[in-house]
Formats: sequence, C-alpha cells, structure tokens
Amino acid sequence: MEPVTLIPNNSLLTATPEEGRQLAIKMARLIIKTTQPDAQVRETLRGVYASDAMMLIAIGQTVATEFSTIAAANNYWHDVRP
Amino acid sequence: MEPVTLIPNNSLLTATPEEGRQLAIKMARLIIKTTQPDAQVRETLRGVYASDAMMLIAIGQTVATEFSTIAAANNYWHDVRP
Amino acid sequence: MEPVTLIPNNSLLTATPEEGRQLAIKMARLIIKTTQPDAQVRETLRGVYASDAMMLIAIGQTVATEFSTIAAANNYWHDVRP
Amino acid sequence: MEPVTLIPNNSLLTATPEEGRQLAIKMARLIIKTTQPDAQVRETLRGVYASDAMMLIAIGQTVATEFSTIAAANNYWHDVRP
Amino acid sequence: MEPVTLIPNNSLLTATPEEGRQLAIKMARLIIKTTQPDAQVRETLRGVYASDAMMLIAIGQTVATEFSTIAAANNYWHDVRP
Amino acid sequence: MEPVTLIPNNSLLTATPEEGRQLAIKMARLIIKTTQPDAQVRETLRGVYASDAMMLIAIGQTVATEFSTIAAANNYWHDVRP
Repeated sequence: MEPVTLIPNNSLLTATPEEGRQLAIKMARLIIKTTQPDAQVRETLRGVYASDAMMLIAIGQTVATEFSTIAAANNYWHDVRP
Repeated sequence: MEPVTLIPNNSLLTATPEEGRQLAIKMARLIIKTTQPDAQVRETLRGVYASDAMMLIAIGQTVATEFSTIAAANNYWHDVRP
Repeated sequence: MEPVTLIPNNSLLTATPEEGRQLAIKMARLIIKTTQPDAQVRETLRGVYASDAMMLIAIGQTVATEFSTIAAANNYWHDVRP
Repeated sequence: MEPVTLIPNNSLLTATPEEGRQLAIKMARLIIKTTQPDAQVRETLRGVYASDAMMLIAIGQTVATEFSTIAAANNYWHDVRP
Repeated sequence: MEPVTLIPNNSLLTATPEEGRQLAIKMARLIIKTTQPDAQVRETLRGVYASDAMMLIAIGQTVATEFSTIAAANNYWHDVRP
Repeated sequence: MEPVTLIPNNSLLTATPEEGRQLAIKMARLIIKTTQPDAQVRETLRGVYASDAMMLIAIGQTVATEFSTIAAANNYWHDVRP
C-alpha cells in the first residue's frame, strides 16, 4: 500500500482563502483515507455520511478546525488583495 | 457539476462582526453543500436538523469555530466603531 | 421573516467578563434561532435539551468556544479592574 | 428567578493554575445552571452524567476549552512561582 | 471527601513535550475524578470506555485540547534540546 | 507493562508539514494505546472505527486539533521551502 500523502505540496501556504478552504477539505479527507485505505469501503461510507445530517455537520466541524490552522498559517491572507 | 465557491468574495475580511458572523454561517453551509451537492437531499436534511435539538447545537459548534477564525482574521474588528 | 441580528450591538467588545459570557450565550442562541426561525419549534426543543444531560453539555461546549473568541477580542479584560 | 452569575468575581484572572482549573469547572457548570434553572432537574441529571462514560468525557471537553481561555487570560501563570 | 487536586504541582510548565502530554492526560482524568468521586464507579466506567471505539476517540479529543493549552504554556518547548 | 511513549523523539518540531501531520496522527493513536494497552482489543476496535463513518470523522477532529498544536509549534513551517 502506497503511504498516503497527507498534505498536498507539503505546505499549508495557499494563494487565497478559497484555496486554503479547499486544502482544509482535502486534508480532512486524507485522514479518512489513511485511516481507511480501502476505496470501496470509503465509497460506501460516502453514501452514508453524505445523507446523514449529523455526520455532515461533524464533517463541517473537522473542516472548520483544519481551516483555522491553515488560516493562521497564511496570516489570514492579509497580504492578498481580493 | 459547477464546483462550489467555498468562501464568498474569496476573503475572510468583513466590515463588521455581524457580517463576520453571517460569513461563518455561510462557510459552514458551503461545506455541507460541497459534501452533499444534491439540493433536494440537502432540503430534506434541513427538515431533519432544523427540528433536532442536538443537531442544532452541533451546527452552533461549527459556526463558533468558523467564527473564531474569521474574528481573528479581522483582528476582532478593533478598528471598527459600532 | 425579519433577518436575525446575530451579534447584539454588532460588537464583540463588552465592559466585563460577565457581559462577555452573556454575549457568548446570546450568540449561540441566535445561531439556533437563525437556523430554526419557528419560535414554537424552538420552545419545544428547549424542553428537550434543557432536560437532556448530553445536550446541556453540548451547549456548554458551544458557549465555551464562543466565549474563547469574545475573551480574546476583549484581551481577556486585562484593562478592567474587578 | 435571580439571574445566574456566570463568572464568579467577574474576572478570568486567578492566582494559580489550580484556581484557574476550578474556575473552568465552575464556569462550565454555570452554563448548565443558566440553561436549566431547576435545581431538582439538575440534580437528577447529575446522577445521569456522573455515571455515563461518554457524558463524563464530554464534560472534560467543555472544561478543557474553558480552561484554554482562562489559561491564555492568565498568560499561563508564567509570573507565578509554583 | 478530600477535594481533588486538579493540576499536579499547580503548574502547566513541564521539562519536555512528553511530560506535557502526560500532564494533559492526567488533567483530563482529574476532571472525570472530580465529577465522579466514586473510585468504584470510575473503575466500572473505565471498562466501558476502554473498549468503546467512539469513547476512546472522544478521550483523544479531550487530551488534544488540554495538550494544546499546555504546549502553548510551555512555548512549545522551543527552548528544550531533544 | 512498558509505559507508552506519547511523543516520538519527545519533540513537536518536524522538518515539514507532512511530517507534522504524521506526528499528529501518531500522537492521537498513542493516546488510544495508552488508554487501551491491549493490542488485541485495539485491533478489534480498529475494525469497528475504520468502517464507521461517524467514528472516522471523529478521528479526523482529533487529528485536526493535534495538528493545530503541532503547526503552531513549528510556526507553520514558514521557514521551510516546499
């Protein structure tokens, strides 16, 4: 089994908040992938959590915590002009 | 499927705390949208979580974490006169 | 439906920690209100969570996170003489 | 009903970490008290959560978050000689 | 009942990260002890949570939050040579 | 029973974000190990949580909190060129 790369580009720095948000989602998913390497099991579980209100909310909590770290790492993109 | 924009205006900076709070709610909802793209499923789930005490509380926890990031990004709106 | 004001006085700054704590509770409740606008439903849910140990604990977790943001915003009221 | 005082002495500052920890527990309990003012109901719920592993763990999570705020407020008691 | 000492040595400062981690676990356990003083009940509950996946995960969440406070208190042991 | 080493190399400092992420996972697992020392029980529980959507999400929340501490400890690897 190829070890899972947990952080794409091995960096928390992104050009914009939107990319930082995408990174937070990706990082959260990669933890699920590294904990459950079987793609088929994950696909089945996707069907479960994507239609379960509490699980969708819980995913949001994980992304919120990951994003708080990424946002701090990028100094909240203060130097980025929207 | 059009990719979901995760952060409106691609910025965490808002004019006031109230707008920051609205952004926190919006960002939390957009994670649910990007995880469950089917609007009909989401509408059904809305009926579930909007009348379930524990789920409403859990949504509040997500918004609280998102807001803590947005508040820090805006330096707690110290430069804003209420 | 009148949009819900999410942060009274549109400011995180309070005169004292006690007021900051009250604001944290108020902000948490306003997220429940904006997610479930129906006052009657909320009143029914109040009866549910106010007598459910796990839900009461979960409310405490939300308030604790909201308060950590408000306390940081007020620099922990270091300039306030109790 | 007398409004509940949410933060004893209206201050997050304590002489030592131990007092800070006691304040965190007290603040967590006062949120339960202000959400469920009926002492008898609370006493019944105490019997529930004090013998439920998951609820005891959840209480610990709340205290941990409250304590992180109090510890930051006291600059981690760096100026206190144990 | 002897009041429970909540923070051994009444200090968050430890010589190394490993000791900081042990302190985080100890502090989490002492909250359970002070909430449920009966050693026999706690021993029974230990048997419950030590073989319940979700409870073990929840304990990990508490320790992670306690540790984040202790790590910040020790400036992440930057002055400690491993 | 040999006491469990909770933090490999007794340091939160890592060369890269990817290593920091691996450390976060490792630290989370070591808390489960120190709470449940029996390897066979843990292996059985692994089969449970690795195929349970909510538990996989909860593990992600723990890793996210651990990682936020490690990232802060490493100053978000600002001095590391990807």
